[in-house]
Amino acid sequence: MDNGSRVVIEHVVPEVDCGRFPIKRTVGERVRVEADIFADGHDLLGAVLQYRREDTSRWTEAPMTLVENDRWRGEFTVSDVGRYRYTLQAWIDRFGSWARDLARMVAAKQDVAVELEIGSALVRAAGRRGNDADAPRLAAYADVLRRGGDEGARLALSDELEALMASHPDRERAATYERQLVVHVDRLRARFGAWYEMFPRSCAPEAGRHGTFADAEARLPYVAAMGFDVLYLPPIHPIGRTHRKGRNNAETAGPGDPGSPWAIGASEGGHKSIHPDLGTLDDFTRFVQSARRHGLEVALDLSFQCSPDHPYVREHPQWFRRRPDGTVQYAANPPKRYQDIYPFDFDTAGWRPLWEELRSIVRFWVEHDIRIFRVDNPHTKPFAFWEWLIGETMRAEPDVLFLSEAFTRPKVMYRLAKLGFTQSYTYFTWRTTKPELEAYFTELTGTPVREYFRPNLWPNTPDILHASLQEGGRPAFISRLVLAATLGANYGIYGPAFELCVRRAADPGSEEYLDAEKYQLVRWDIGRSDSLMDLIGRLNRARHEHAALWSDWSLRFHRVDNEQLICYSKSAPDSADVVLVVVNLDPERVQDGWTALDLDALGLAADVPYTVRDLLTGARYEWRGARNYVQLGAGALPAHVFHVEPGGAA
Amino acid sequence: MDNGSRVVIEHVVPEVDCGRFPIKRTVGERVRVEADIFADGHDLLGAVLQYRREDTSRWTEAPMTLVENDRWRGEFTVSDVGRYRYTLQAWIDRFGSWARDLARMVAAKQDVAVELEIGSALVRAAGRRGNDADAPRLAAYADVLRRGGDEGARLALSDELEALMASHPDRERAATYERQLVVHVDRLRARFGAWYEMFPRSCAPEAGRHGTFADAEARLPYVAAMGFDVLYLPPIHPIGRTHRKGRNNAETAGPGDPGSPWAIGASEGGHKSIHPDLGTLDDFTRFVQSARRHGLEVALDLSFQCSPDHPYVREHPQWFRRRPDGTVQYAANPPKRYQDIYPFDFDTAGWRPLWEELRSIVRFWVEHDIRIFRVDNPHTKPFAFWEWLIGETMRAEPDVLFLSEAFTRPKVMYRLAKLGFTQSYTYFTWRTTKPELEAYFTELTGTPVREYFRPNLWPNTPDILHASLQEGGRPAFISRLVLAATLGANYGIYGPAFELCVRRAADPGSEEYLDAEKYQLVRWDIGRSDSLMDLIGRLNRARHEHAALWSDWSLRFHRVDNEQLICYSKSAPDSADVVLVVVNLDPERVQDGWTALDLDALGLAADVPYTVRDLLTGARYEWRGARNYVQLGAGALPAHVFHVEPGGAA
Repeated sequence: MDNGSRVVIEHVVPEVDCGRFPIKRTVGERVRVEADIFADGHDLLGAVLQYRREDTSRWTEAPMTLVENDRWRGEFTVSDVGRYRYTLQAWIDRFGSWARDLARMVAAKQDVAVELEIGSALVRAAGRRGNDADAPRLAAYADVLRRGGDEGARLALSDELEALMASHPDRERAATYERQLVVHVDRLRARFGAWYEMFPRSCAPEAGRHGTFADAEARLPYVAAMGFDVLYLPPIHPIGRTHRKGRNNAETAGPGDPGSPWAIGASEGGHKSIHPDLGTLDDFTRFVQSARRHGLEVALDLSFQCSPDHPYVREHPQWFRRRPDGTVQYAANPPKRYQDIYPFDFDTAGWRPLWEELRSIVRFWVEHDIRIFRVDNPHTKPFAFWEWLIGETMRAEPDVLFLSEAFTRPKVMYRLAKLGFTQSYTYFTWRTTKPELEAYFTELTGTPVREYFRPNLWPNTPDILHASLQEGGRPAFISRLVLAATLGANYGIYGPAFELCVRRAADPGSEEYLDAEKYQLVRWDIGRSDSLMDLIGRLNRARHEHAALWSDWSLRFHRVDNEQLICYSKSAPDSADVVLVVVNLDPERVQDGWTALDLDALGLAADVPYTVRDLLTGARYEWRGARNYVQLGAGALPAHVFHVEPGGAA
Repeated sequence: MDNGSRVVIEHVVPEVDCGRFPIKRTVGERVRVEADIFADGHDLLGAVLQYRREDTSRWTEAPMTLVENDRWRGEFTVSDVGRYRYTLQAWIDRFGSWARDLARMVAAKQDVAVELEIGSALVRAAGRRGNDADAPRLAAYADVLRRGGDEGARLALSDELEALMASHPDRERAATYERQLVVHVDRLRARFGAWYEMFPRSCAPEAGRHGTFADAEARLPYVAAMGFDVLYLPPIHPIGRTHRKGRNNAETAGPGDPGSPWAIGASEGGHKSIHPDLGTLDDFTRFVQSARRHGLEVALDLSFQCSPDHPYVREHPQWFRRRPDGTVQYAANPPKRYQDIYPFDFDTAGWRPLWEELRSIVRFWVEHDIRIFRVDNPHTKPFAFWEWLIGETMRAEPDVLFLSEAFTRPKVMYRLAKLGFTQSYTYFTWRTTKPELEAYFTELTGTPVREYFRPNLWPNTPDILHASLQEGGRPAFISRLVLAATLGANYGIYGPAFELCVRRAADPGSEEYLDAEKYQLVRWDIGRSDSLMDLIGRLNRARHEHAALWSDWSLRFHRVDNEQLICYSKSAPDSADVVLVVVNLDPERVQDGWTALDLDALGLAADVPYTVRDLLTGARYEWRGARNYVQLGAGALPAHVFHVEPGGAA
């Protein structure tokens, strides 16, 4: 038996899994909140959105307004990294309801003397509640209402009294939403960034020599010139020798084979050590600082697995599963066996020290100025571990970002994002047709998924050379590059393989690179005249200059009457900046067609000319209305990245 | 830091508002439950659905099976009225995963000696867990596996061991879903029933005399002959004299005017008393028993409001709001005033005794064999009150049903349903076109709304004579009747006004009846030759004979190439019975057209003849495939209610 508030607050959006998980935002973003708010009867209601940083106790309030059909809306802006909370409060607006009814009675010329006395009591109570500068005025108004007559009726329905009473609502029996919901606020880089993945060991100018951090430092101007924001390095730790893989994933390594960087750990050390051939920890620190001066933030790989030679195997045998024959259980996906890799046994009774040790690895690199981690295969470790690890890390260092490399089933990928991963790899790599791309990116950017899952789009990785690149060659590389860089505010390429359009696979039907850099040193001819370096630079500059490309939520697809042409736009908040992209998905043929643009989405009026300026070529076209002609491919670039500018061409 | 189960159970369906409210079922119905269930890594999983009556503590388990994409499904049947709980449990299937991997290794001709030892340990552990008749067999099998060789490998992959191990899963670290969800189980009448609303006071055979329960008893064979299940009576209590309304809602009653039955309470008593002109409590009890012998269950009205003469006003002045002039606040919807009605003040400090007293009214009538209540305007009383009142009542008497008469905004109607109302009035009364009907009934029967909101469809009520009936006359009455009785497993009519096709409104544009029975005695000429009595009888018999019409969830709309013809089907579980309805929505003209039937929904194969037999006329047609011709209206009935029978016509 509970005679609580008469007001119901339900169906709050955003809210992930009944509030079990936070929503994600970046600094400066708005949180727009909607809810169904209603009460029994016919009274008017008042409502506010309440929010606060989690480390403060005072709520700030933002007004909520009725949209329609009992749906209310309000919003606030998050200004700091870390966690915020938000909830809602709503109440019956007795004075507003009274004034509404009174107006109807006055219009019907009914006697309202008694009603004015009722109103007087409401105003007097507001004056007593306020205890502020308005109290005397409210008391005086209450007297006027009480005296009634024309003067009382006039005051009762005045805008002045309405405004005054609206600022002194009776919230004694207000309803508070049953949950406090959480916003996790990251820095901008969580939402917007161009990544470049590079193996430092392949940065030596001479063929055959193992590159060092000094060599990698010399490569920084090249990467910076392409306009990237994040430089991601595969593991930089000592590499195991036992069962080391040779070139092209050979079972046995040759004498000079460096092994896979993901087979972490050797006598020289493990996850907190630097591969001796790359240099020292000081060399690494210098490299990170130099990268920062070039506008590049270095991201490290977190691969929680060991080579058989990792010191952990000897020091913490209980962290690995034993086979009945006494050997350690290696990684396997039967019938495939990865005998160079020992997974941790997260089911071990000694899981607490294991978790703590892994947490200390993150702390170690954070202390060495690393704030971005790309996490290898998180879907093969327990969910509870990640929620703990990321939660602990971000509590201490809220500017740290984690990218989830989980190429697995959709619900597992989404779960990892909910648990705390800042960004996630996606299926973009395998979505190549127009219907596939439209359906997938509508799911990622136009459904509640976007509240917690931030896509990071990669056309290639050291593990994945998609058939469309193998077959399509340079035009396909350009199309996929433009798609990644404009569909995704976060995207990345694995270079220099990407900009050099490397497209030979290990075997027919395979997505593995031939002579993959994972297993051998590679000397890249980065100066090649057909490199996409310049184009990438133009694209990344366009991304930096156009706020429309800093986020994914405004993505809107537009129709084109050719299935090989995909067309979409993005706009900055309040449409201050609009970018329109058209890409030819056919690497072999010229394709043309007519657009059917959604002019509203572009912030354009019908039948007024406007200019589209290609940010890749500088070309300008005067367009008008929804229907415009485009032709792309063969010789010309297979993509337009237009800035949409109101007004005709100069 | 919590190294709990590695298995996630989420997105459970059905689940209303994060488990805040129960779902509804009736005795014998299935509860089909789906959930996303997955773990990190690549192991196979096992899962069960657990359920129990709330008053027992032992769970029963039903298997869950993987549908696709990490979605699992299971079901159970509820066999008793009252409340059930259900939840889910899932675990990693170590043996199944091991067997799957082993099969791949065997296929690749790898050495599996060590693997067989691992499997042996799993089987041995199962034997120790079981502690049952299987234990010796499991121990023996473990030995065979341990010895290895061809015999071990053969056993490892045998169906026998698979089945044996499946019945001894290792659930030590199983995940249990975080919520226990509730099913409220009603008796069948909650889901399926035809209601007839009748004023006993108008049952006297002589004009001008106030009818009695004895007169109403004489009317029972008439109502029973039409095949109704529930006989609903407007309030039967003493009616106030102060501000009593006259005929046609006149401000002042004439000397013989009986007043509105909803102005409850006079010197003769209140909500627990019988209007003296109807008879005594004994007369009422006799009437209820007689109705039962006619197959009719009597439903009473619960109107929680008082006339100014109600004993409560004198005995419990604190239950009503005072105006500043000392008078009691009457009901109002400004500028309209209902001075014959005093609402209860649910905000009163004395709300506890008020709630208890209202609860005692329900208890009183329950003790007088009433098990169905139609609740007047529940949306003008606090939600918390209804949740408490219905909860308390049903805990004691789980076979009691409450029908919510809330004609208000959709979210308020849905909230009342969630809070416990068994059934709800709907917008059916105002949905008259094909798109309106299709959209509304798709929402009610094909979305999660159906888990808690049970529609009860009324083409008319004493308050609502819709324009389509006023204008359309007899054909419109028939169409609306057939729609109500077949779209809704629960439906009702207000009679005899309905079957006599009474259609004169109080004023043009009004939905009020002229000379409404609410304010005066009416003598109905129930023997009129143009009465719909026979048709209603045939329709209600068809409803009883065809299980397809006992529920709403199977409703499927079929296309017809004429906007005035609406076509839909319902089928019993497992398609044991299929009914197909076509209704002409145009009361004035013959309409014809071609169907485009969804044969799958009808359980029919393409290109095979079948028979449709009209349950209203007995006519039979041989149809074939999706496309068939229908013509309805003008002279002929404006509706077909077909039973669909496989095979050609005899």
